[in-house]
Amino acid sequence: MRNSTLTKGSLTRQKIVAAAAPIFNQRGYEGSSLSALMAATGLKKGGIYRHFSGKEELAAEAFDYTWAAARDARLKGLDGQGSSVERLKRFIANFANYRSAVPGGCPVMNTAVDADDGNPLLRARAQKALKFWLSRLRTIVRQGIESGEIRPDVDAKAVATLIVATLEGALMMSRLAQSRSGGTGRKMDALRGAQRHLNQYLDRDVAVDRQPSSGIHISTPSV
Amino acid sequence: MRNSTLTKGSLTRQKIVAAAAPIFNQRGYEGSSLSALMAATGLKKGGIYRHFSGKEELAAEAFDYTWAAARDARLKGLDGQGSSVERLKRFIANFANYRSAVPGGCPVMNTAVDADDGNPLLRARAQKALKFWLSRLRTIVRQGIESGEIRPDVDAKAVATLIVATLEGALMMSRLAQSRSGGTGRKMDALRGAQRHLNQYLDRDVAVDRQPSSGIHISTPSV
Repeated sequence: MRNSTLTKGSLTRQKIVAAAAPIFNQRGYEGSSLSALMAATGLKKGGIYRHFSGKEELAAEAFDYTWAAARDARLKGLDGQGSSVERLKRFIANFANYRSAVPGGCPVMNTAVDADDGNPLLRARAQKALKFWLSRLRTIVRQGIESGEIRPDVDAKAVATLIVATLEGALMMSRLAQSRSGGTGRKMDALRGAQRHLNQYLDRDVAVDRQPSSGIHISTPSV
Repeated sequence: MRNSTLTKGSLTRQKIVAAAAPIFNQRGYEGSSLSALMAATGLKKGGIYRHFSGKEELAAEAFDYTWAAARDARLKGLDGQGSSVERLKRFIANFANYRSAVPGGCPVMNTAVDADDGNPLLRARAQKALKFWLSRLRTIVRQGIESGEIRPDVDAKAVATLIVATLEGALMMSRLAQSRSGGTGRKMDALRGAQRHLNQYLDRDVAVDRQPSSGIHISTPSV
């Protein structure tokens, strides 16, 4: 059982993971060469792999690190005030506007694409991350249904899945359209379009009271 | 200049590309080892690279092959009869239902993710493929505007981008959620949800005459 006091070894281990994370996220598992990992960490092979059972374990921990950074950027401010719909819009805006501290795009998409021909350990991490992420969004939708802000007939899972799919696909297109030197601050049409579309979808199809002419009028219960 | 009569060399070259295509699409550039390429083609290193300047050229031609297969599967039946909106729905159904003849998922997404830290040749091929694809969808939208089936204020580029983004993101999620052994015929919730959502979007926000209660009524001009 680990103690909360970090030993020198576990500190080194954390530093290696942090240095290796951008390499794996940008280059993928196979593309992350030993020489690149050595250059990033400033350690020799023995110095790196003293702390890990092998490349697969290092890559899995690097994924967790990269995912934690992406998740924090996307979920920023979501525990604060605001209605459920506002929180979903905040999430969408976070995704469209903020890049994670670890470069290379979304680790879930990268790992999904990279690990779909094998590497079950990495694949399982990406699956778990996606599940957690969808679960957070579903919870917000359900809270909105309970508080009467979101229509009771809305399928929380479908809303969460659609938001993530639209944003992930738009991110891929934005990144592909960018010039290589492009980082933050570049024009990203696909992400802007996805944000506009999803906000409209939330107002019209998810939120209560925004579609007075829909034929189905649901009064807001005071729960 | 090439003659339309294929030489034995160019036939061999085509066979190598066809055999290498699934390897590159599933494993990525770095993950496509010489041994895997040799096993797939049944040739030794010299037999493969006699026909190509190197791995990068083979990977680029493999991308073109894989993209042609994906494009054909997605655009199937789009030149036939039917309104513009029906053709867009057909495209969406093709994407959601048919898998390309080359396994490994969408080559544009795979290459976008795989080549975003380098490999400018592959990246340029993926950019070109995405542009062609968006351009085909934009043309369908513009034809619909001209024929009065699609609202004149619709942004053709935005419609094309949103359709591709939503489907690509949903495909990534579907593939990640699938078990490793899963191929065609598996339940793919994210793709089904994307299809339903996009069809509704086309009916409500793109097609003329489908939203009588929108407040903005556009009469169908007889062009």
